[in-house]
Order: sequence, then structure tokens, then C-alpha cells
Amino acid sequence: MYEPRPEDRFTFGLWTVGNVGIDPFGFAVRPVQTPVALVELLAEVGAWGVNFHDNDLVPIDATPADRDRIVRDFRKALEKTGLVVPMATTDLFRDPVFRDGAFTNNDANVRAYAVQKTMRAIDLGVELGATTYVFWGGREGVESDASKDPLVALKHFRAALDFLCGYVVDKRYDLRFALEPKPNEPRGDMYLPTVGAMLAFIETLDKPDMVGVNPEVAHEQMSGLNFVHAVAQAWDRGKLFHIDLNDQWPGRYDQDLRFGSVNPKVAFFLVKFLEEVGYAGPRHFDARAYRTSDMDDIKAFARGCMRTYLILREKAKAFAADREIQQLLADIGGGANAASIGAYSTRSATDLDGRTFDRRALAERGRPYERLDQLVVELLLGVR
Amino acid sequence: MYEPRPEDRFTFGLWTVGNVGIDPFGFAVRPVQTPVALVELLAEVGAWGVNFHDNDLVPIDATPADRDRIVRDFRKALEKTGLVVPMATTDLFRDPVFRDGAFTNNDANVRAYAVQKTMRAIDLGVELGATTYVFWGGREGVESDASKDPLVALKHFRAALDFLCGYVVDKRYDLRFALEPKPNEPRGDMYLPTVGAMLAFIETLDKPDMVGVNPEVAHEQMSGLNFVHAVAQAWDRGKLFHIDLNDQWPGRYDQDLRFGSVNPKVAFFLVKFLEEVGYAGPRHFDARAYRTSDMDDIKAFARGCMRTYLILREKAKAFAADREIQQLLADIGGGANAASIGAYSTRSATDLDGRTFDRRALAERGRPYERLDQLVVELLLGVR
Amino acid sequence: MYEPRPEDRFTFGLWTVGNVGIDPFGFAVRPVQTPVALVELLAEVGAWGVNFHDNDLVPIDATPADRDRIVRDFRKALEKTGLVVPMATTDLFRDPVFRDGAFTNNDANVRAYAVQKTMRAIDLGVELGATTYVFWGGREGVESDASKDPLVALKHFRAALDFLCGYVVDKRYDLRFALEPKPNEPRGDMYLPTVGAMLAFIETLDKPDMVGVNPEVAHEQMSGLNFVHAVAQAWDRGKLFHIDLNDQWPGRYDQDLRFGSVNPKVAFFLVKFLEEVGYAGPRHFDARAYRTSDMDDIKAFARGCMRTYLILREKAKAFAADREIQQLLADIGGGANAASIGAYSTRSATDLDGRTFDRRALAERGRPYERLDQLVVELLLGVR
Amino acid sequence: MYEPRPEDRFTFGLWTVGNVGIDPFGFAVRPVQTPVALVELLAEVGAWGVNFHDNDLVPIDATPADRDRIVRDFRKALEKTGLVVPMATTDLFRDPVFRDGAFTNNDANVRAYAVQKTMRAIDLGVELGATTYVFWGGREGVESDASKDPLVALKHFRAALDFLCGYVVDKRYDLRFALEPKPNEPRGDMYLPTVGAMLAFIETLDKPDMVGVNPEVAHEQMSGLNFVHAVAQAWDRGKLFHIDLNDQWPGRYDQDLRFGSVNPKVAFFLVKFLEEVGYAGPRHFDARAYRTSDMDDIKAFARGCMRTYLILREKAKAFAADREIQQLLADIGGGANAASIGAYSTRSATDLDGRTFDRRALAERGRPYERLDQLVVELLLGVR
Repeated sequence: MYEPRPEDRFTFGLWTVGNVGIDPFGFAVRPVQTPVALVELLAEVGAWGVNFHDNDLVPIDATPADRDRIVRDFRKALEKTGLVVPMATTDLFRDPVFRDGAFTNNDANVRAYAVQKTMRAIDLGVELGATTYVFWGGREGVESDASKDPLVALKHFRAALDFLCGYVVDKRYDLRFALEPKPNEPRGDMYLPTVGAMLAFIETLDKPDMVGVNPEVAHEQMSGLNFVHAVAQAWDRGKLFHIDLNDQWPGRYDQDLRFGSVNPKVAFFLVKFLEEVGYAGPRHFDARAYRTSDMDDIKAFARGCMRTYLILREKAKAFAADREIQQLLADIGGGANAASIGAYSTRSATDLDGRTFDRRALAERGRPYERLDQLVVELLLGVR
Repeated sequence: MYEPRPEDRFTFGLWTVGNVGIDPFGFAVRPVQTPVALVELLAEVGAWGVNFHDNDLVPIDATPADRDRIVRDFRKALEKTGLVVPMATTDLFRDPVFRDGAFTNNDANVRAYAVQKTMRAIDLGVELGATTYVFWGGREGVESDASKDPLVALKHFRAALDFLCGYVVDKRYDLRFALEPKPNEPRGDMYLPTVGAMLAFIETLDKPDMVGVNPEVAHEQMSGLNFVHAVAQAWDRGKLFHIDLNDQWPGRYDQDLRFGSVNPKVAFFLVKFLEEVGYAGPRHFDARAYRTSDMDDIKAFARGCMRTYLILREKAKAFAADREIQQLLADIGGGANAASIGAYSTRSATDLDGRTFDRRALAERGRPYERLDQLVVELLLGVR
Repeated sequence: MYEPRPEDRFTFGLWTVGNVGIDPFGFAVRPVQTPVALVELLAEVGAWGVNFHDNDLVPIDATPADRDRIVRDFRKALEKTGLVVPMATTDLFRDPVFRDGAFTNNDANVRAYAVQKTMRAIDLGVELGATTYVFWGGREGVESDASKDPLVALKHFRAALDFLCGYVVDKRYDLRFALEPKPNEPRGDMYLPTVGAMLAFIETLDKPDMVGVNPEVAHEQMSGLNFVHAVAQAWDRGKLFHIDLNDQWPGRYDQDLRFGSVNPKVAFFLVKFLEEVGYAGPRHFDARAYRTSDMDDIKAFARGCMRTYLILREKAKAFAADREIQQLLADIGGGANAASIGAYSTRSATDLDGRTFDRRALAERGRPYERLDQLVVELLLGVR
Repeated sequence: MYEPRPEDRFTFGLWTVGNVGIDPFGFAVRPVQTPVALVELLAEVGAWGVNFHDNDLVPIDATPADRDRIVRDFRKALEKTGLVVPMATTDLFRDPVFRDGAFTNNDANVRAYAVQKTMRAIDLGVELGATTYVFWGGREGVESDASKDPLVALKHFRAALDFLCGYVVDKRYDLRFALEPKPNEPRGDMYLPTVGAMLAFIETLDKPDMVGVNPEVAHEQMSGLNFVHAVAQAWDRGKLFHIDLNDQWPGRYDQDLRFGSVNPKVAFFLVKFLEEVGYAGPRHFDARAYRTSDMDDIKAFARGCMRTYLILREKAKAFAADREIQQLLADIGGGANAASIGAYSTRSATDLDGRTFDRRALAERGRPYERLDQLVVELLLGVR
């Protein structure tokens, strides 16, 4: 019942199931897997697609011959398994050259190199079928605000994206950009730290229509922000081009935990939102297994991400079908007979000015939100 | 040397120096002061202006006669002291009628009442000289995401602001709107929780040009976000219409502490930014004295806010005049001779594609940011 | 099936279901209820007991005659409903006299008054049957570390508790003390902010045996700490004298939300722990309904706290009975045949020194924790 | 004036100035330095001592001959430079064998190996002069509370420490243990997460007198807790055996920033406390330079840590010598003539019961804490 199917559009990055377990206090605990092996693993667990950073697939120092061989092998694995590549992205953070950022680096040569590297990575992504290209500015930030002017950083960031939009259009690629915010780590503070900041930034680009966002559960929750609200704002603007699903405790290091494993209730409202608005893009799990996991447990992790999504999708349907819940929702839309203020006109303003409100009566009316929320909890816990 | 002058444009809200010390665990500890007494207090400590919520000045149940008398007395106090009213706002959170929000309330009558109340509050603000009108959506949010649809909430919020923009234009008021975000408290999660979210939201309004933001130090720092970066993004968009200065520990209840009292280094970078870009609006202190303070200590608090700003302004000048710091800043603009990528064209893309970068050489170059930041610390501590 | 029974030992404070909805940004939204009415409400929803601060029951300015009448009425309500009073506490934070703390106040008169008030409140609690007496130091802290010496504050805090322990022993009361930590709010920083800090502090008292802790979910989670681990440390020391159940988002203002309503998974591990170790004290809900609730919704809130506990208790039993889970748990106790290091002796040290470990083999062994945790999630969601 | 001297007892770990800049999103950016080179660097910048994890000095797979050569060279470097080794510790987190913890690992063999490794590391530390031995339980925790029983984990942790205390006594080493708490990272939740938790845990050990704490600024501030209060509680118990100085934003990944670089005001109160109580142990900087730093900047970083400490030490003296500040402090010790409650006796209780307090008069008295705190800010900023 909770087995993933292609139409569920579940994807994983090569870097997720391929994570070897390096962290700030420890070495790798698992062997490096080839991209082909990872594609096979993802096929085995039932994923629909696979995403990658350029250097997840092709090492940064690969020769052209190496590159071609790797891409050929990868493509064969895709064909064999039926997996697709809906999204690709650039690694602009792992190599030491990016130690002070890529697009916002103080060094013009590094900024130019970052754009060049991204152009080539876009080519690679498109070659393999990607229609969404993600930007996560892994090191676009500072530890000390003395070291960069934030206005100059925004200018540099914008220049790079405008250039790359031009490139995609010029190449007639069928590709949209999705910007992914994160508040901190690995930098002290990263620019454009939230979904909201990215949405506002997009409006300042030359070609805002081809740029949207890739919100990630963990990144918004690190700051303690409500992820569903952020996704809703992106959706409201038509900018939800992609989404990164995982889980995270607020106020901590970036955890990238199994979807729904920290807080199933938050995950429920997210799945409910995505399903109800009809989000049709990939459900991408940007998560990784615990460092204690072996390969079997990595499979359990990947299956768990998808199963929890599917279970919660059923819960969302049950919510919609629950009479008591739906009755409560109908009841709380109070003042249903009230005149709307409508659009502004001198007339509507005069009308509104002339209305008399019984403030105390309106104030007294309580709302059954505890009852409603408790029904949600019980629905989630499977006892109704 | 650090005495406030009118050209410093320091303002306080009536609710700041007039705060009586109610908190979730305790009653008032200080007597209510009349608006006139508060204006006199602000004049005594050297403020330039005073701001208010409608009901800070005129009680919600005041008769028209009461209103007129209060306004007359207040105006007299302004004239006597020379204080101005650059900003006004609406109390849409204190009365029980707003227990579930104002513009995003589920009850259409409450939404309409909130707009009506704001129209009248705008009239009052304009009457007293305000040219900026702030919106802080004190209860526009939820505790349970079951209780409101976030898309509908955005729609309601937008409808209210569009209506009110229409009203201001229709009335030919010289007034701009400034939206003030806050992530939580008193609601579990509030909509449009960050400066970025507000900037993005503004783009969806009918009259985006007349709407900007009013960032508050405490509200952004509650989420652990870098406040200077948020202000920089607002400035970059031409949207820094107003600013609320105070201080706050990350990850806590809303503290509204004396400006610079939690972290003088953060305050330094903020003052430096505002002064260097030439922000010409009010420096509004939305802070309140500790609950332990008596009236003398409230004055010390208000003076402290302004003194710290002025001290830090001097530090910003010293930073600009410090040869060692300026030399370091010049040095870190590395690759100064590098060709910029410029605007996109097929030609510039070809040029960039053809460039060869010595990645390892670029990577090896360290940055003297520890040295630079330590110089800032020593400048702040007054030992250089 | 999930109806509360007396043997479940569910209790609420008068201040929880009686909360009128004051917050830092708003007035009361609900009428004050008499203690008798609140006892009746608690009886109606199925609680076993009721707790109070002295001034929840008897106003601070009550005459002796008032006090006697109130106590008599309250006792009658208890007798009529069968509710018991297992715990009482002192309000040392609401009155302005405590604006700078009670036991750690800089003013010796306030410190003395706080102890006197507590002695009388202890008398009241014992008179009504309380066997646990809670101390929450609501204002024992600072906003500025210049204002109090933390060593002197600890000394004062200790002196007060030692005095009060002496009082209880002298009066031959059957009463134990439970200290309740909180990191901040309403003070910037409160002393002894965590369960750990309180446990360590207890060791410095004259009569440590009669003093334990009262951990509260929200207070530990405000700091992002793992509540179950804190409770486990208290239990390990025999110090879990009482517990406050509610819910809270990390890194926010004190929310006191319905038990299990923020994160049912965290609540599950807590209930599982309490039930498995055999905690026999009250399950006290120190929570309050949303400010949007009316009296009906307050009942739904109170019922919800208890129902969620009971549902999770069933889940804990299901966890213990789940073969797949139990098999995994058995498997992860690896090295079961390994010799324990045992207690130290020269001989055991020599033995250990002589052992050879195959570090790489030990390192390679993965742990099926993703699989295990996913089973927990599915058990919680009711799909296994 | 702010040059470090041996009597300042400034120390650094080999891992701090030797940090190569690996983080979760990037590779090393700086070459590995030999221990000898690092000792020379520390001597050059003026440090008094150097600390190490066993494997900072001797690689985990070194042969006995390697070990001896390394130790000989290191000792020579110490002799040449005059640096001392006041503290040593064990690396129980970097090798994959510890992926699920060391002393609390579910595998008895790993637990035994961890104790054996620590015994040998203690030998190494003592051989080089260490008198304090630090325990940081880098991976003693969980991501899922299903995976370990927290009571069993405490039992295992205790057994390891009791064994190692026995070892030190048996060997007649002049060595004390200092336990270092951390709330999370690299594990989701780590056991005994705060200074308070560690202090309480120590009381449960066989030989509590030889065990104290090693509080770290960053680790306590990650949870948003007041570090000075934690240090004060440790001092109050006679348990401040060592201290780790650095800096950290609350609610983020472990940053280990330059001392005083995030918040100089917090650092001031810490230095003031340490100097005023007469803490005589090492001032250990457990910090690392930004990943953007080259070796020159690492020296600037190390010098900055020490300079800031010395500057703040002068500020603490200035605070003590400031008449206005001292007068305020004298004034706030209100009720100086009030009778203390004294120790408990039936008589003192009767006396206290008989006292009459004018609650309203006591409540009205405000406290000049804003004024006092502003004086601190101005003293810090060097303008008084």
C-alpha cells in the first residue's frame, strides 16, 4: 500500500544515499559508491529519479575522456533502471577554491571560475535530461561582516544569475532555475537566508520568470521558521519549482534527517499542502542516513522517506474525508454572511466607514482550534 | 559629544518609555503615564520624535469628544517640546477581538473591522504629521496549521493592504506603508516572518511602490538571522522605509532590549551600514526598559539607546579612517585585475568558456579576515 | 478506551484551565473562573487531581476570613468531586514586589518576605493534602550580569531552600520539594536553567534527600535540549519527584501547549520512559489552551492532553510487543559475549590492557537505527 | 600592554591552530602541520602551553617506535620553546570505530576498547606533564531515542569513568578529570548536555573529588544558555578544573570562533568572573581560525584570542575602579539593614513569621539596572 510508484515522482541525490559519513569530528565510515551503483540502489528501493552535483558524477579533475566514459556508464544505468534525472546542480562549495564563496567571492577570478563551472555543469545536467537547475550558495556568506559588503555581495550574486539565465536562454535549454536558501553552515551567515529572501531577490533579476525556489525543510527549520508557510508563499507566487524533503531540529547544525523522522506532524501539514494544491514537481529527498548506518540501513532510510510520505498522503485524504474535522473547518469560517470589504473604491471605503461592529460580541466568540488540532493528532496516531 | 540632536532623527514609541511592565508572569509595576507626560519625558532626554499606535494615544472606547481633547493636548505637548510624529501605526492585537488575527482572521467581520480601524488610525496619524505608517501583524498567524489555510491568509492580508493603499491614495495622504515582520510571539507562527518574506510579499500588492519594510533588530534575531543582511536586502530594493532599533538574544521570547545592550558588535555593523548608505529616515527605538526600572531608569534607558548609537557612529567613522583596516579591505578585493564576466552575450559566454583558471593557486590564497575582525573588536573596545 | 481514570493520576493546575489569556501583547479574553468552578471543570473532563499556587486559590490581599471561606469552599468542591491536591506551589513572580526576584532578590527584605510567604503557602498546601511542593523561580535571574553576582545569588537561593526544608521537617509535614528549572522568560537569564543544573544544586543543600526536581517539557525544549534525557538523569538519581507535561517549539517563548501537540514522537518516548521505569507520581499537565479557545475548547484541550498520553501509553505497549522492533533491539546490543571491563582493580586493568581489538572490524559494523526509527514512526502513525 | 605572558597561562590545543579546515561541505584548505611546527607557532605568538588529543600527537596506527620518536621530538620542541602541557585528552570520536559512541556504545567491545585507548592516552598525557585530563564525549548520544536506553547509557558512562579514576589512583598519577558537556553535534542529542548535567553526574561517581568540569563557551551558548552562570555554578562547587574559551552564536552549528569575536560583552563578564574569583587554571582557547585563513591569519587569530582576553581583563579592573559603577552596585544591595533570615530554627521561623513587610513599598523601589548596564557598555566601548 505504501510502495513508491513512478507517478509519485520520488527522487534522491547521488550525494544522499552515497554519503560516506564525513562530519566535522570524524572520517568517512562507508566506502565511496560509484554513480552506477547508486542508481541501482535507488532503482531497487523504488525511486523515480536521481539528481546530482556536477562533481558527484564527474570528478572536478576528470579528463574529457573520463567524463565521457562516466556519463556513458551513468546513462546506461539510467536506461537499464528507468530512472530519470529531473534536476541537476553545481558543487560550488567543496573545493578549496570556494573557501570564501563562489558568486560572492571577493576575488573576481573565483567569481568568473564559478560561473564557468556552472555553465559546464548546466550542459551536463541538460545532457542527462534535467529540466530544473538548483542553486545552493553553499559558501555565499561571511563569518565577519567586516569582510564583505552585503550590497556588493548581492550585486555579484545577481550578476552571476543574470549571466547564467542568459546562457540558458541563448542555448535554448528547457531549464528553469531554483534557488535554495540556507541561513548558516558552513558559513557563519549566508546571504538570502530564507525562502522569503530568495523570492524577493528573484524579483530583482533580469529574467525573474525563469527563476523560482527550492525550499528545504531543514534549512528553514534551522531558523525555527514554519516550513509550510514558506512553501505556501512560494506557491502563491508560482515559484515552487522544486522541493527538498528531509527533517531537522530547530536551532541546530544541518541534520538532513529522514523525512518525517523528527516531527511527523509538521511533515503531515507539508504533504497535505503539496497534495492539495497539486504540486506536480519531484518530491526530492535531500537527506542522508545516520552515520551509524550500513548499506542495508541506507536502503531502509531511503524506503522510509518514501513510505512516510505515502502514509502521510493517506492521512491527508483521511483529513479531507473526516466529517467531524470538515464540520469544524466549515464552522470556523465565521462571519460567512458578512460583507467582504471588496476592492477599494471611494464608495467601498464609505460603506466600510459606515459599518458598525459589535467588538465585544466578535471578541467573545471562541474558536475550537484545540479540538481541531487534537483531531489531527488522533488522525495522525491512527486512532480515528 | 554623544548628546542627541534633532538631525540624528531619534524617535521612540509612546509604548516604549510608557511601558508599564506587564509580562506573561506579572502585573504592571509602573503607573500609566499620559501621552503628554511621555512627550515631555522624550523631550527631556533629547529625542526628536514620537510614534504611537492609535490606542496608545486614544483609548479604543474613547468618545469623539475624548478623542478631540486628547489629540489637542497631545498636539500642544508636541508644539511645546518641538517633537514631531514621523510614524504611526495601528493596535490590531491588544483587544480580544483580534485574538485570532486582524487582516487574516477567519471571521470576515473582524477582517472588515480591522480595516476600518486602520483607516481611522491612518487619519489620526496623518492629522498629527506622520508620513510613514507601520504594519505589524501582531496576531496574523496560527498555533495549529489546521486552523487556517496559509494561501487564504496571504490572500486576506493582501486584500487588506491593497484596500488601505487605495484609501491613502484616494485621500491624497503623503504616507508610505512599512511592513514589519516577526516570526512568532504572541502567535505560534506568524505569516511573512522575515524581512525577506515581506519584501517578496510587497511585489504581489497592487501598489508596491508605496509599500516598504520596517525591519526590527529583535524580530530578525529571534530567528538567529543576520539583521544587517536583512536591512541590506531591503536597502538594495529601495524598501528601507523605517527601522526599529533594539536588541535581542537569538532563540528567545521577544525582548526589546536597549539598543546595543546585548551585542554591541552587531549594533556597530548596523549603525555603520545605515550611516554609510545614507539612510535618512528616523532611527526609531522600539525597546523598553527592564521591568525593574523606575522612571529615572527609564530615562537612563532612553538616553542609553541614543548614546550607544552615537558612540557607534563615531566608531564607524574611525573604521573608515583606520589605515590598517582600510589597507586590509583594499587587499582582499583580490583579482582586481581580473576581467569581469560582464553582462551576458554569446560573445561574453564564449570568452568566459575560453578562460583558464588555476584553481589550486586561487584556492591557496588565504584571507586576513581574522586579523581584520580582530581590528574591529579592538576598535570597538577603544584600544586602537 | 482512552478515557482517563483515577489510577492514571492526571492532574492540572488551577492556573492552566483557568488561564484568562493575558499575553505580552494582549488583554484577558476569558472571564476569571472561581477555583470551585475549575475543580468542577476538571472533574467533568476526568482529571484525578488539581494543583495551585497559593494565590491561585487565595488572593494575596485576602483577609483571614476570606482565606478560610475560600479554603472551605474549595475543600467542599474537592470532596464533592473526589479530586485530590497532590502538589502545591508559591506565586513568587506575579506581584510587583518580586520584579527583581524572590529568593535571589538584591533586597534582603524581599528575600525574607518571599520565605515568609512560602512558609504560609506550604501550610496551605499541606492543609489541602499536598505531599509535593514545587519551586519555580520565576524571576530568579537577570537581564544584565552587572546587576547580580551569580555566586551570591546561588548562596541566597540555597539559604532560602535550607530554611524552608528546616521548616517542613520542624513541622513534621509529609512533604517533599521539587525544583523546576527554566532557562529564560520572564527574565533574560534565569539561574539554574536546566534539570541538570537543579540536580547539581540539590547536592549542595543541607537536606538533599527531601529535594528533587519537577522537569517541564517546555522549559527544557526552549533550550533545544532532549527532555527524555533530562528526565532519565533525574530518575537515575532518584529525583523525579514530579513532572510537568506540555509541549513547546525549541528556541521560542514559553508556549505551554497541549501535551503532544507539537511533536507526538518526542511525547511518545517520554510516555514510554515514564511507564517503563514505573514512575508513580502525578502526570501533571502544566499547559494552557490557545488564547482563541472558549470554555468548550478548554475542555477539549484538557481532554486532549490526557487522551494523547493514554494513546501513547498504548503505543509504548505496542513497541514492547512488536517482534520486529524487539528483534532489532536485541541485535544492536552487540558484543554481547564481550567481557565487561568490570570494576577497576589492578588486575582488571592489566586484563584490559592485554586485550586486542580489531578496530576496523568493529568500525565496519553498521547499526540498523534508520530501520528501527522508521518502525517507530510507522507504529506511531498507526500503520503497523 | 596586551602582550601575553607565561603567568597569563594561555594555552591552545594542537587541533586548534593545526585545524586544516575540513567541514561537512568541504575538504581541507590548509596543509597538515607537524606537532613540532605547531609548538613553534604557539611559542611565536606567546602562548604558555599546548594541549592535545592522543591522536593529535601520535597517529592511531603508529608503531611503538613511531610513538617514541614523535614524543621525543615533541618533548624537544617543548623544551626549546618553554611551552608546557597542562592538559591532555582522548580522541574518542574521529575513528569510525566510535561511530555510535565510545563509553556509551551499544557494543561492549567498543566500550572496552575506548577505555583501553583512554588508559594509554592518560599515560601519554602524564608522560608529557599533563595534570588535567579532559573528557569530551564526542559521540555519546543518539539520533533516535529508540536506539539506546538513556539509563543504560548513563550506567556505561559511569562505569568507564569509575574505571579510569581507579586507574589514575592506582598509578599514583597527579591528574584530575574534567568533563566537557555539549548538547549536540556531531550526534543529534548528546548525553549530559550542559555544565549542570555534568556537575550532577559527577556526584554519582565513585571518586567525585577527582572529577570536575571543563565548560566551553560555545557548547553552552549553542543551547542559548548563559555561560557565566554555568561557570559560576561550577566554581561554587569547587569544580572548575579547566575552561575552554572561544565564541559562538546561539542556536547554530558548533563554531569555535575566536574568543570575544561574537559578543565582547559576554566575554567581558566571563573574564571579569574568572579574574575576580581567582581562577588559577589555564585559559585554554578551544577555537579555530576561519576556513578562509592562511597561516599568517591563524597567527592573527591566536594573538587575537589572547589580546581580547587581556583587554577585557583591564576592563574588569576598570569596572572595579569606576566610582559611579561601584556606587550603583553599593546602592542596589538594598535592605542592607534588614535582618537576614539566618539559619533555620524554630525560633528563627517564629521571628520571620512575625515580621510585617510593606509589600507595596518594597515593590515600588526601582532598580537602576539600565543605567548600570549602559555604564558597562560605555566602559567596554572605551568612552569612559
